[in-house]
Amino acid sequence: MKKSIITISREYGSGGRMIGKMVAEKLGISYYDKEIIAKVAEATGFTEDYIEKNGEYSPSKSIFAYSVVGRDRSGSSMNDYIFSVQRKIILEIAEKGPCVIVGRCADDILADYENSLHVFVYGEAEEKIKKVMASNHVSEKEALKLMKMTDKKRSINYNYYTDRQWGKAQNYDICLNSSAFGYEACADIISEIAK
Amino acid sequence: MKKSIITISREYGSGGRMIGKMVAEKLGISYYDKEIIAKVAEATGFTEDYIEKNGEYSPSKSIFAYSVVGRDRSGSSMNDYIFSVQRKIILEIAEKGPCVIVGRCADDILADYENSLHVFVYGEAEEKIKKVMASNHVSEKEALKLMKMTDKKRSINYNYYTDRQWGKAQNYDICLNSSAFGYEACADIISEIAK
Repeated sequence: MKKSIITISREYGSGGRMIGKMVAEKLGISYYDKEIIAKVAEATGFTEDYIEKNGEYSPSKSIFAYSVVGRDRSGSSMNDYIFSVQRKIILEIAEKGPCVIVGRCADDILADYENSLHVFVYGEAEEKIKKVMASNHVSEKEALKLMKMTDKKRSINYNYYTDRQWGKAQNYDICLNSSAFGYEACADIISEIAK
Repeated sequence: MKKSIITISREYGSGGRMIGKMVAEKLGISYYDKEIIAKVAEATGFTEDYIEKNGEYSPSKSIFAYSVVGRDRSGSSMNDYIFSVQRKIILEIAEKGPCVIVGRCADDILADYENSLHVFVYGEAEEKIKKVMASNHVSEKEALKLMKMTDKKRSINYNYYTDRQWGKAQNYDICLNSSAFGYEACADIISEIAK
């Protein structure tokens, strides 16, 4: 396989996680998502729920608040600590062998990693809202709010811990509109390129 | 063929034009780039050189200057006129049959066109500079300046004539980093998807 480490960044509701799972199955390689949460929880002593809420999302919708919240005298915050442990675990996972890693700034952490393929998955708002409504059993209005808030918090976290802008095409090797192709076709495109 | 109208938007130096030609050859369909310039020149009475300089690039590096320059009492400018003729010609080309169209806001003009595939090609700065140096016989410094200026003028033109932001992943069905894959592989990926 030419590209053995595949990172998938995604908009909320775009099916990036599902596409990542399909790619791992098609290529017969490991898939990491919730497993990272468990590893970080174990290493830090926090609950998995706390890591899930803080390992990829800013606690605030303001980049300024995020940069000052919860800092001790050394200038470190709890989120900085979680991020550094998570970073180390992602590097260890990549060392183990071929895999798909979803989210968690893995594209930036493994940017210079040889044989890596960095993917961004996005979609049309209309279709993403339908998916979020169905999977979260919420109204259209609530789905839109949830979608905006989640992507906002993901982008603040990403922009803060990397020197990049979340979702900017230039960070990735390939960006795919899952509404244009469907999940299965996106997984096929990624798998074919990886091969 | 599932996707018969392929538009390619590209960063300067990313090889988007070359990739577009390869895709047209691989699929055995028409390729439009300079042909559009000739058609617009014929329809407007301007020289091809004038159309090439004004059909895709803002005359100024400022969006404000661009929005006010050369307007008559009706509020129209020469660039508005060229854009409207170019738009009509692109729609006529798409009606004729399967083709690849490079640049000129074709992705936006044909956004709702059935069976269309909208691609954005970008690349790593280092590699793009090398390509621009070789093809324009200029120094590294001059290549970087030319690259920045060309993309700036393209983006101002695009952002002005569409309601979109040039190079934003969400405008396109797929975005490809030509430095990660090479031109030939990019053309293969696009051709396979189109099929």
